[in-house]
Amino acid sequence: MGPTKRSVFFVSDGTGLTAEALGHSLLTQFERVEFTQIRIPFVDNLARAQEAVARINGQGEADGMRAIVFTTLIDQQLADIVHQADAFCLSYFDSFLAPLEGELGVKSSHTVGRSHGSADSSDYKKRIEAINYTLAHDDGITDRDLEQADVILVAVSRCGKTPTSLYLAMQFGLKAANFPLIPEDFERGRLPGTLQKHRSKLFGLTIQPERLHRIREERRANSKYASLGNCRYEVAEAEKMMRREGIRWLDSSTKSIEEISTTVLQELKLR
Amino acid sequence: MGPTKRSVFFVSDGTGLTAEALGHSLLTQFERVEFTQIRIPFVDNLARAQEAVARINGQGEADGMRAIVFTTLIDQQLADIVHQADAFCLSYFDSFLAPLEGELGVKSSHTVGRSHGSADSSDYKKRIEAINYTLAHDDGITDRDLEQADVILVAVSRCGKTPTSLYLAMQFGLKAANFPLIPEDFERGRLPGTLQKHRSKLFGLTIQPERLHRIREERRANSKYASLGNCRYEVAEAEKMMRREGIRWLDSSTKSIEEISTTVLQELKLR
Repeated sequence: MGPTKRSVFFVSDGTGLTAEALGHSLLTQFERVEFTQIRIPFVDNLARAQEAVARINGQGEADGMRAIVFTTLIDQQLADIVHQADAFCLSYFDSFLAPLEGELGVKSSHTVGRSHGSADSSDYKKRIEAINYTLAHDDGITDRDLEQADVILVAVSRCGKTPTSLYLAMQFGLKAANFPLIPEDFERGRLPGTLQKHRSKLFGLTIQPERLHRIREERRANSKYASLGNCRYEVAEAEKMMRREGIRWLDSSTKSIEEISTTVLQELKLR
Repeated sequence: MGPTKRSVFFVSDGTGLTAEALGHSLLTQFERVEFTQIRIPFVDNLARAQEAVARINGQGEADGMRAIVFTTLIDQQLADIVHQADAFCLSYFDSFLAPLEGELGVKSSHTVGRSHGSADSSDYKKRIEAINYTLAHDDGITDRDLEQADVILVAVSRCGKTPTSLYLAMQFGLKAANFPLIPEDFERGRLPGTLQKHRSKLFGLTIQPERLHRIREERRANSKYASLGNCRYEVAEAEKMMRREGIRWLDSSTKSIEEISTTVLQELKLR
């Protein structure tokens, strides 16, 4: 049995978000260890590298156990300083850049902080535009400019349309509109508004009625809207409509917005 | 000189988003190589592993050059299959799990797909609540419930308040409100609404006036709002106000929402 508490640092010359995400996915593989995770971003000069070392060493002393350190430092001098900390250090770049250089037959450029793209890059502008588009096309606000949409999510209220749309925009730069399916649509037996015209971009979300009931109760307790009977009715009708219209869909009940978004991309063959 | 075009696959039993992010940051270090990047998510059974191999090998044949493959596959059997592809394979877990097991003195649990957390986890619910809060508190819509905010961004219009607020909510589960600073605020010489009460949560964004002018011109060409003179006035007044009120701020001109958010977290000592 090893120790059950450890401090982990993610040290980066950029935001450190990528280092943290991968480190986090590795650490979840050690369920019995309780990790305190600390991100140290923007370590892009000597003073900050030395500060990082002092912090890492201080934490190790406080814990009575050396810290674990993941680094993504491109500058070799800064990396060397941080790796002298009294800690267990793992370097993403040491592990992967050299093998990649061998395979590609070229040297890496060792340029700092390019992973999120410059705020002036066309990719970045596309993301910001997509966020603005998605906010302006949330929850069926408007039928306008739907021809610009990359994807249009449809679902009954509280299935995760809005967070998923925003994630698609923010992460992938996709213009994601979303429309609620409401009882009036079921009574008319038709998709809302002008969605028929955009059938190829439609993707549906559905949910277990019991789960929908619980979510809606938190918003409007004891309402018809939140009642289990009504949730069952709406979900059944929405699924019937999506089946009839040939709309691809998934059950969002236990899925994260990352998982839903990844499935939407796959199914609509986006990117 | 090596080859200038290569295909790269990210193969994961989950979304593959983390594998892709780290891979992407490694590949940006090879500027002269043009990479085609393909994510293969949800490889969680034998059939999908075999499909992935077929796709990787097919791409290698089409390219006349073996593909590069990054994997995050926890299941050893599936990893073994994918790693038999005729490709250059790099495994995040092979590289890091064994050293971590040594350092921690415990075996990893080899559990699939935990990195984004379950949709039922309290962290995940917190993220979704934060997104809802942030949407309801965008652009000064309301003063209500500001005591619940983790951070309140202030800036003149078009400095990146909304995308940054949404990123803070989505990535970190922070309730992020934002308020525009408008000419009326400068004339009165006071922060808008009830923001005084929440000074410790305030963080300001500013921007180069020339850049703001270009951004506003795209929205409302030839308006007073977008004119360089007005942009200079608003930015100068906003900076004066933030200085006077002791509000921390940064220049968002060339920063990505990831970089801005990371700085906000650091400065407000959130998390």
